[in-house]
Amino acid sequence: VELITWELEEIEKGPYQHYMLKEIFEQPESIKRAMQGRIDEEYATAHLGGLNMTSRELLEVEQVVIIGAGTSYYAGMLGAYVIEQLARIPAVAELSSEIRYRNPVVRKNTLYFAVSQSGETADTLYALRELKRKGARVLGICNVVGSSIPRESDGGVYIHSGPEIAVASTKAFTSQVTAFYLFALLMARMRHLSYEEGLLFIRALREVPERLREVLEKAPEIKALARKYAWVKNFLFLGRGLNYPVALEGALKLKEVSYIHAEGYSAAEIKHGPIALINPETPSVFLVPHDELREKVLSNMKEVKSRGGKVVALCTEGDPDVREIADDVIEIPAVYRYMYPYLMVVPLQLFAYYMALELGRDVDQPRNLAKSVTVE
Amino acid sequence: VELITWELEEIEKGPYQHYMLKEIFEQPESIKRAMQGRIDEEYATAHLGGLNMTSRELLEVEQVVIIGAGTSYYAGMLGAYVIEQLARIPAVAELSSEIRYRNPVVRKNTLYFAVSQSGETADTLYALRELKRKGARVLGICNVVGSSIPRESDGGVYIHSGPEIAVASTKAFTSQVTAFYLFALLMARMRHLSYEEGLLFIRALREVPERLREVLEKAPEIKALARKYAWVKNFLFLGRGLNYPVALEGALKLKEVSYIHAEGYSAAEIKHGPIALINPETPSVFLVPHDELREKVLSNMKEVKSRGGKVVALCTEGDPDVREIADDVIEIPAVYRYMYPYLMVVPLQLFAYYMALELGRDVDQPRNLAKSVTVE
Repeated sequence: VELITWELEEIEKGPYQHYMLKEIFEQPESIKRAMQGRIDEEYATAHLGGLNMTSRELLEVEQVVIIGAGTSYYAGMLGAYVIEQLARIPAVAELSSEIRYRNPVVRKNTLYFAVSQSGETADTLYALRELKRKGARVLGICNVVGSSIPRESDGGVYIHSGPEIAVASTKAFTSQVTAFYLFALLMARMRHLSYEEGLLFIRALREVPERLREVLEKAPEIKALARKYAWVKNFLFLGRGLNYPVALEGALKLKEVSYIHAEGYSAAEIKHGPIALINPETPSVFLVPHDELREKVLSNMKEVKSRGGKVVALCTEGDPDVREIADDVIEIPAVYRYMYPYLMVVPLQLFAYYMALELGRDVDQPRNLAKSVTVE
Repeated sequence: VELITWELEEIEKGPYQHYMLKEIFEQPESIKRAMQGRIDEEYATAHLGGLNMTSRELLEVEQVVIIGAGTSYYAGMLGAYVIEQLARIPAVAELSSEIRYRNPVVRKNTLYFAVSQSGETADTLYALRELKRKGARVLGICNVVGSSIPRESDGGVYIHSGPEIAVASTKAFTSQVTAFYLFALLMARMRHLSYEEGLLFIRALREVPERLREVLEKAPEIKALARKYAWVKNFLFLGRGLNYPVALEGALKLKEVSYIHAEGYSAAEIKHGPIALINPETPSVFLVPHDELREKVLSNMKEVKSRGGKVVALCTEGDPDVREIADDVIEIPAVYRYMYPYLMVVPLQLFAYYMALELGRDVDQPRNLAKSVTVE
């Protein structure tokens, strides 16, 4: 028997109509908790004692493989991008259900992460066991303390999101991402990242909760957007680079709570097929932060517009080029490029929530879904 | 100026109403051409002289990364599965458009493949150049002889499909897959695969064209199925393992030529979100061959049925359990487990074709799409 140490107030809805909304609004705090006590400004690095690995062992890691299902898989995809880009360690994310039956090749210097909010996701737990039987070192990224995945893994990071009650995961996603950002920082600082660059990353990460508060103030604007698009049956969600997994997660949220068929894609990939779907009834939601991929995404947006598709864009404040192309725009504050995924995913969570409200769905308990999927 | 050596009859439709249908029916022949002169039964291995690599160099490969876009990406996903399972070399597929801007880490013993029917796909060509600048060895898997990707790569395999005129790729997919199967066999035989196991694989591969002819005889049955489902606006395509990329490719085909929103998923993954979409108007197409994952897929099928979703199943001949659950069934012959993707993808190509016909689409020239995507 495990002692659950959550406070009563943490599992009450308070002034919010639904747990999902409450949990979306908690994110500035839950992200802070995921960072708490783990950032070392003096040496511009992260401390993650729960990894149970010596510095020498961490230095020997040559590859990272992250496994997960649903939202946790998308957090892993984003984690893999950040680990590879920042720490220069090749990293990939794999579906737990696929890797398990694939008889994967486990190599000595590959480090595995198993991501699961509940720590009980059957697909991920069984994949972890299979990997461990093959001699892999597997770390957990989980929320529920004492759950099966942390107990059976070689170490890991608790994300300390507090209880997540809504079936559709929101705050767990941003906290899982935070765990990976801290791990990427740690590994990068042990390798090629300078003190100054490390500090830049830390300061940008610490700024996220404040910037997220500004994004959350856009809730009424996003609610109005949901009202405007509530008639839509099919959406494409499009992003590139770090924001490609965010597009996938945004589409999944909409599927889960509104039952609308939204599909995520790399924005570049639509011209290889999915652009055939574009018509005035199938709008596209573009993630277009002011980063090095902006020009490319703008040209993808123009392709969609020129084929009669409606475009909703999430972009950085004061980007007139986006405004000129898009039918509707939600602006987010300018941040360091690595931090855009946080600011992009929250409006998509809100959009899914308000769409579900518009359509009269059971937001916290969507049909056919369970919070913790303990069957295969 | 390159000399195109295709014969006139190769680019005429003959008795077929559309190039797409002609190209689907050509596959027993085009797959044979992709194998021709490349199989060595005496030593139960493959010869791929165009790789331009010594045996010693091939033995030093520790990882394979395959890049592509659209259908070529899905062929690469399947290739990665087969290389990892058969040759025990860790392998992944990446979107060309994503890897290019990701500043990928290139390591000495990683071998890259760039897959493109035309050999001119801009996303893949630019990614190839970026990888080569980083010192990577990149091989091409292409159809058009003398095109940019084969010219700029370090070697590769021509798939010899003959001209593919329809915008939606069909025969190129199965030939790209064949190139990867031969490469996997070669690498496996250099490592742990015995002569007898190699021979088993070769005989199963050589049998594919004949089995495909039997599948093609099901065309009228698949046409009737398309007529029955022509009213549908949203589909899920679901498979696992080797047939997960096939599900993605089947959904892409339907998108491309019929403009229906079909989305591919790992069958196991739907319970982590997409199952919320299931209702009587959103049928699922399940790929359920008689392999080691069959039991799991059956239970995924039951979940969908119990939530009111219609199920179309592609299964092995004489599988009463599938028939009991599914609303409609297309049967394919029993083959060696690695060969099911060939037999699964062809009915999906035919289904997309007949759906497009039913809906009066311009099959060979779908809206918004170009055959060879030479822009980024």
